[in-house]
Amino acid sequence: MAEHSECMATRLIALDWGTSALRAFRLGGSGEVLETRHRPWGILSLPPAADGMADPAPGAAFERALQRICGDWLAANPGLPLLACGMVGSAQGWREAAYLPTPASLDALGHGLVQVARPGGAPLHIVPGLLQQGMLPNVMRGEETQVLGVLAGLALPADAPVLIGLPGTHSKWVLARGGRIEQFHTFMTGEVFAALRGHTILGKTMQTAAVPDDIAFARGLDVARGSDAALGLLSHLFSTRTLGLTGALAPAAQADYLSGLLIGHEVAGLARAQQQGAATPQRLVLCGEPDLCRRYAMALQAYGFATPAIATQATAPGLWQIALAAGLVSAGATLSSVNPATGSPTA
Amino acid sequence: MAEHSECMATRLIALDWGTSALRAFRLGGSGEVLETRHRPWGILSLPPAADGMADPAPGAAFERALQRICGDWLAANPGLPLLACGMVGSAQGWREAAYLPTPASLDALGHGLVQVARPGGAPLHIVPGLLQQGMLPNVMRGEETQVLGVLAGLALPADAPVLIGLPGTHSKWVLARGGRIEQFHTFMTGEVFAALRGHTILGKTMQTAAVPDDIAFARGLDVARGSDAALGLLSHLFSTRTLGLTGALAPAAQADYLSGLLIGHEVAGLARAQQQGAATPQRLVLCGEPDLCRRYAMALQAYGFATPAIATQATAPGLWQIALAAGLVSAGATLSSVNPATGSPTA
Repeated sequence: MAEHSECMATRLIALDWGTSALRAFRLGGSGEVLETRHRPWGILSLPPAADGMADPAPGAAFERALQRICGDWLAANPGLPLLACGMVGSAQGWREAAYLPTPASLDALGHGLVQVARPGGAPLHIVPGLLQQGMLPNVMRGEETQVLGVLAGLALPADAPVLIGLPGTHSKWVLARGGRIEQFHTFMTGEVFAALRGHTILGKTMQTAAVPDDIAFARGLDVARGSDAALGLLSHLFSTRTLGLTGALAPAAQADYLSGLLIGHEVAGLARAQQQGAATPQRLVLCGEPDLCRRYAMALQAYGFATPAIATQATAPGLWQIALAAGLVSAGATLSSVNPATGSPTA
Repeated sequence: MAEHSECMATRLIALDWGTSALRAFRLGGSGEVLETRHRPWGILSLPPAADGMADPAPGAAFERALQRICGDWLAANPGLPLLACGMVGSAQGWREAAYLPTPASLDALGHGLVQVARPGGAPLHIVPGLLQQGMLPNVMRGEETQVLGVLAGLALPADAPVLIGLPGTHSKWVLARGGRIEQFHTFMTGEVFAALRGHTILGKTMQTAAVPDDIAFARGLDVARGSDAALGLLSHLFSTRTLGLTGALAPAAQADYLSGLLIGHEVAGLARAQQQGAATPQRLVLCGEPDLCRRYAMALQAYGFATPAIATQATAPGLWQIALAAGLVSAGATLSSVNPATGSPTA
């Protein structure tokens, strides 16, 4: 495998550092992923010190997490650039990387990196998030990097608009054109689902389904856009309970039905906003967990959107693009600078 | 005061028995409330046996709650009719009172009472809830009684439609005409607010306001119906956070803003559904907690509804109306049947 080849040099250590998890990528000279590691060390769940003592400096717990996930990579490649995106750049992170305004280009992100000095090592660079001002401001941290990763993988005419959906806890819908992030919206769909399931009467009658129930999901979609659509989400939600009470929705189908209601309302909102805005992009990409993307594709189809392409693993390519734009790495590095140590399997 | 007059006879013991609370009313010969008691003994929080032993029979905990809240009334008035509404008639209650279908008249409710035998005492009668069948079924338990209480207090032309809103955990909007409950909708507004505040990122930056912040509330209403209305609730919710992040919404204003978003979306859904249906009733009544009714009145005004009348304490009058329809009490009872014991203040 490529990971074990002696001639694959590490060029960048890239970190996807969110609220609940930390993912580290070792990237080669063309941005290819040589190795990936995953730890539950998000910025709110950093590993404690081994001796149980309080940390001497604010960044100590972040440095500890970094050393534990990839200290061997750092030791084998002193001076190698380090680049991170996500909540690590928030006010609760290692160092706050102030939001850049939209529209934002790849170059703007590359030139907006914030640097954290690391005694005895190369500095860590952090990708800033994006802020879209307005009556309803929008923010993202981490998704801007995924979007750039998605765009790098598309063969697009220079000025073709593309709509990129990143479903999840806080779904983002990003309009990009010519490599720039022009506009985006946020929907709290995933977090609202979890709160409704875990902390309202709707969850009390739900049972876990053995497999995803697409029929129940589609039924939820139908309600969101059907003859009773006018009543809106707050009314539709209650049908999760009443269809159960009347025997018309089995306990194991209720969570998928609720998911259909919520995702249906998200895509309905997106569709209405698209109708009010400029022409809807013909090019559509979904980037996220595969089964969730499959469901969003069902919802998009129900609302007449174009069939989306599905992208996964966009963060590492996005970090590579930003590292290129920032001059942390250079395109088409030759193999002459290979450090043989990095080719070895790591501990 | 009337409560202490020797000539006020108790005619009905009326119970508003919900999920989290039990309220008992001692009613006189015209349905007037002679005394009210309130205990936290909802059907899911019944008082345990004094000796800590398990109950011998399924209804024992309900009987215990009944004796503790008004055993003295029962002892002083043996044979007096007992009537309850609310979740006490649900599958988790003392005895299930199957839903009646809508449209439902006062007479149908009066004739649909379910009776629970009580050894050594008069039976308890329970008001059935209502079920509206359809693609999105709706149910109520307790609100049907409030609606009848509201209707009894209105001087209405016989066939004038009236729209009655009962805001709360699960808001109900009930269309009544000629004393019948014709149609109703449910919105999970109150419960969704609590889940979002208590169990999502939105609650983390909220601070409790010293007084209700009507400006923040109105701002939430404006978003729900403003130029970004198309995006819908799931997107609007996120602005509670981003307006805070950008310094445009103080922590103490965020809960009221979120309340405005949610109530705005509820009333927007109601307005759309009314436009699709028959003519909007000119007569509007809100029945519930006064400050919540005040806020709903603001929202209704924003959507062009007629100014609502505000009703409170509708449950006891509603139970009286149902007791009359069921023949448990008779209208205009004379004072000849006064039991002097009931005129005394109770322990």
